[in-house]
Amino acid sequence: MKKFKGYLIDLDGTMYRGSEPIASAADFINALNKKNIPYLFLTNNSTSTPENVSDRLNQMNITSTSRHVITSSLATAKFIKHQKSDANCFVIGEEGLYKALQQEGLTISEEAYGSDYVVVGLDRGVTYKKIAEACIAIRAGAEFISTNRDVSIPTEHGLLPGNGAITSVIEVSTGKHPIYIGKPETIIMNEAISELGVAKQDIVMVGDNYDTDILAGINSGIDTLMVFTGVTPYHEYSSFDKKPNYHVKNLSEWIDHI
Amino acid sequence: MKKFKGYLIDLDGTMYRGSEPIASAADFINALNKKNIPYLFLTNNSTSTPENVSDRLNQMNITSTSRHVITSSLATAKFIKHQKSDANCFVIGEEGLYKALQQEGLTISEEAYGSDYVVVGLDRGVTYKKIAEACIAIRAGAEFISTNRDVSIPTEHGLLPGNGAITSVIEVSTGKHPIYIGKPETIIMNEAISELGVAKQDIVMVGDNYDTDILAGINSGIDTLMVFTGVTPYHEYSSFDKKPNYHVKNLSEWIDHI
Repeated sequence: MKKFKGYLIDLDGTMYRGSEPIASAADFINALNKKNIPYLFLTNNSTSTPENVSDRLNQMNITSTSRHVITSSLATAKFIKHQKSDANCFVIGEEGLYKALQQEGLTISEEAYGSDYVVVGLDRGVTYKKIAEACIAIRAGAEFISTNRDVSIPTEHGLLPGNGAITSVIEVSTGKHPIYIGKPETIIMNEAISELGVAKQDIVMVGDNYDTDILAGINSGIDTLMVFTGVTPYHEYSSFDKKPNYHVKNLSEWIDHI
Repeated sequence: MKKFKGYLIDLDGTMYRGSEPIASAADFINALNKKNIPYLFLTNNSTSTPENVSDRLNQMNITSTSRHVITSSLATAKFIKHQKSDANCFVIGEEGLYKALQQEGLTISEEAYGSDYVVVGLDRGVTYKKIAEACIAIRAGAEFISTNRDVSIPTEHGLLPGNGAITSVIEVSTGKHPIYIGKPETIIMNEAISELGVAKQDIVMVGDNYDTDILAGINSGIDTLMVFTGVTPYHEYSSFDKKPNYHVKNLSEWIDHI
């Protein structure tokens, strides 16, 4: 069995479900730490900051620092910075997105019209007025960026609209398609691979969601390890067009391969 | 030239543009009144009541009463009433939709979960919470109805998101498709044809928007008269797959045929 030198790891459904850690998640991370194998957590969540995420992991006894966390907001901010380091951004989103953009030194514009970028992340306080302003700015030429395609987010109240659903209002109204950043896109993956500092052939992407985690790995040309502790049920395995390189029912089965 | 015995007439782009009446619109309606030819105004607008619409027309010296006006909200309320006369409706919308449902004796539910119908019209005060509740109700089995597909609405500030764009959040997040009521659907047309009380072969649909007005007429098997005073430019005429029966640059050219 191949020994990987770097791990990219999904969170929801792989490390925890809601507020509950998944069995063996802490042991899995401890095994990586013990062998000094670098890893990063990769989440499409755009509302939390890396600090919020690592606090949550630590509360579940899963070792992490904020530097272990790449959110779709962080990857979005880095992507925009590469394109235009003094960009002016009109933002629909929450704290995680605002802070990520500010930390990259980008300007947050109160005025949509005339901004360089309209950046959309999940915003549970979004208004019609803000969406309308975003549409006008995009029609006037602003670049349209969206943190991720997720159409719904699992909560204790049920499946609520995700950022992909919010983004669709603007997409449908303007007829313009955004650049998506989060998994399964390669943009967030390239950011993570470069941050990890390990050659691509030695990295594995670990996750429970075929459509985001596993396709992200496949799309970016790295190996994939699928776990069945989250959204994609095991019985769907046979229907995958492109299979993950490895799959386990849960992470405990993989620890010996680290 | 065929003499029609009943007219269905679009408003925006056909009778007025924004707050300005279109030349000959008042003369056109006066000619119908003079010959006692029945007519109805048909609008996808879901936020205004028929009274709001007729007041606006009268201010522009275009003769009308609220009984001449069928909004997409009115057609929605009548459609639901035919299906379930004691329906319980969770509503995303503005005054025009609420009043229409109430006037048909339907119950407006504050609680989305467990409602019979989730009814969506343009709501410029819509919140994430309301959309999220609507999604949960639809996943739980509520019928999903949307007043119209219009993706954008022309305003003095530019093109703003229309009801079709708002509806797409729920559609994308739940994966369920709504029943649309407004033009170019036949639901609003059948309601209007029945209200007009004239045989279908003697009715003409008049409008400026190929994708809504003209297709609505074609879809419901009545004749169509296209005017080029609104959104669809004349140079697109040659590209229409199914042509309108008649077309004029503006309504003054048609008055002699009334």
